Amino acid sequence: MGALRLALTPGEPAGIGPDLAVRLAQTRQACELVAVGDPEMLAARARLLDLPLTLEPVDYARAPLPAPAGVLRVDAVACPAAPTPGRTDPANARYVLDTLDRAVERCRDGQCAALVTGPVHKAVINAAGIDFSGHTGYLAERCGADEPVMMLATDDGALRVALVTVHIPLSAVPAAVTAERLGHVLRVTAQELTTRFGIARPRLLVAGLNPHAGEDGYLGREEIDTIAPVIAAERARGLDLVGPLPADTLFTPHRLADADAVVALYHDQGLPVIKHLGFGRTVNISLGLPIVRTSVDHGTALDLAGTGAVDTGSLRAAIATALHMARAGSHGP
Amino acid sequence: MGALRLALTPGEPAGIGPDLAVRLAQTRQACELVAVGDPEMLAARARLLDLPLTLEPVDYARAPLPAPAGVLRVDAVACPAAPTPGRTDPANARYVLDTLDRAVERCRDGQCAALVTGPVHKAVINAAGIDFSGHTGYLAERCGADEPVMMLATDDGALRVALVTVHIPLSAVPAAVTAERLGHVLRVTAQELTTRFGIARPRLLVAGLNPHAGEDGYLGREEIDTIAPVIAAERARGLDLVGPLPADTLFTPHRLADADAVVALYHDQGLPVIKHLGFGRTVNISLGLPIVRTSVDHGTALDLAGTGAVDTGSLRAAIATALHMARAGSHGP
Repeated sequence: MGALRLALTPGEPAGIGPDLAVRLAQTRQACELVAVGDPEMLAARARLLDLPLTLEPVDYARAPLPAPAGVLRVDAVACPAAPTPGRTDPANARYVLDTLDRAVERCRDGQCAALVTGPVHKAVINAAGIDFSGHTGYLAERCGADEPVMMLATDDGALRVALVTVHIPLSAVPAAVTAERLGHVLRVTAQELTTRFGIARPRLLVAGLNPHAGEDGYLGREEIDTIAPVIAAERARGLDLVGPLPADTLFTPHRLADADAVVALYHDQGLPVIKHLGFGRTVNISLGLPIVRTSVDHGTALDLAGTGAVDTGSLRAAIATALHMARAGSHGP
Repeated sequence: MGALRLALTPGEPAGIGPDLAVRLAQTRQACELVAVGDPEMLAARARLLDLPLTLEPVDYARAPLPAPAGVLRVDAVACPAAPTPGRTDPANARYVLDTLDRAVERCRDGQCAALVTGPVHKAVINAAGIDFSGHTGYLAERCGADEPVMMLATDDGALRVALVTVHIPLSAVPAAVTAERLGHVLRVTAQELTTRFGIARPRLLVAGLNPHAGEDGYLGREEIDTIAPVIAAERARGLDLVGPLPADTLFTPHRLADADAVVALYHDQGLPVIKHLGFGRTVNISLGLPIVRTSVDHGTALDLAGTGAVDTGSLRAAIATALHMARAGSHGP
């Protein structure tokens, strides 16, 4: 089984993304990691951190080969303004998106097996006059895909949580949980657990929207009117679904024990338990894209950039998960 | 330090509440436990479970004294229809409320130091034509108190979660998180952590309403318009409050480490982590009542009534917590 080549976008150049890439390059990886970004910026960050780093242009014509310790392969994208760690600059906003565009291209044409993204800084991209609501939506648009499904997973696969809605106000959640969206999320999640994680017939626990999953309509009717019918319809199409379940008891250990993933209807219903269990080793996975994409589960941590006080745990977990998914996919249907 | 006397309402007579009371009476307790309910019903359940049980009328004129193993003190309230385990009967709905009324009276006049409630069955009480939305609201009404604060706690006190809103549809949550209610919950929680739990100046972590606590208004404005101002005002009155915090990272272990309680804004934001951590040993506590009241955190489990397959863990935890609170209160300001 040959090595795989992975594209890594360090993300916001004033944040800790470049630090993480430099630190990771200090040890030999299981794959050929290609940093898609500005080589001078990476070299400068290595000097600042006082870490040895040799940057080599990636050669896509060669078979993938992990770089030795201290070496990082690069697919160069130029950064217009030399970044200062800790200080975002709208002049570099377009650069951040350029690295994503380049990396998506490499994945779509098969030169890279997966994309692993470092943290970006939404506000500075918007400040540059670019409409940007986050990585996932941007990548979907570049891939011509439907709104993807965000799934968080602990690095050991002990818990996976897919979300029906993500970054919207709580007051907008009930209307956003449509039959169409819920059905899409259930199908995509089940399908990719099969194709990307090798689970023949995944069992999904589906949360209700209201406390106690509506308690037979006493505490809300969405379960009766929308959620239960969608679950019944997708079950009839062959999915293994349990629900709608009260969200508070859904996450008890005996419930989780025989499930492959949880489908939560909104952000703060789904994420507290997994972040409690797995903070620092939780991976953000985009399902429903034509490429494999994982991400760190933390932000740019501007105050830590250039200080050396960074934890590569989430990035390592994101890379391991991406490799796992890419390998499963290469055997898939 | 003398023993305390606690009132225990077994709740729905067709459920597992009577089973739990009978099982508990098999061992000597640290307090004098008084079952407020029908003695014949309790005797019948003991026979069904094949457990020895001597029922003694409580003598409130005597100092509290724990009963020996196999003996249960009773404050008799007659049950009109002999209950069949597993089959609720609206004819007994009024009886369930009568036991609560009696127990509240005993606590208010000081004959009992606290009330511990077994599970009731909301639907059957409503089916009897009685408007009843749950234990907590009913008890508040009987005590002439404001809407109390529901707090869940693990039996070791490692995690406590107070809720601003509880059993309402998710779509009603944003409007229900008013400045008035939030301020009330913060004050009551802080005050009772002091008077009932002996924590001099409790630190509370307060969740935001929206994902990422609104992300500076990008994902909702309730944090800016309501939540942050209330927190600032209560801080100015001396409370130790941290927030509004994103709910997903609020529950990470390092955040929880230096906090005494979490204040969550709604049911499914606050309860998944504590039920994940502490299911079977989580206690439901009512704050803001003139009496100490705790409850099991499970339901009537009609299918298990009379079978012997019940776990007294949550009831034991509820009793231990009630004792702890009653003792702290007797020393309190």
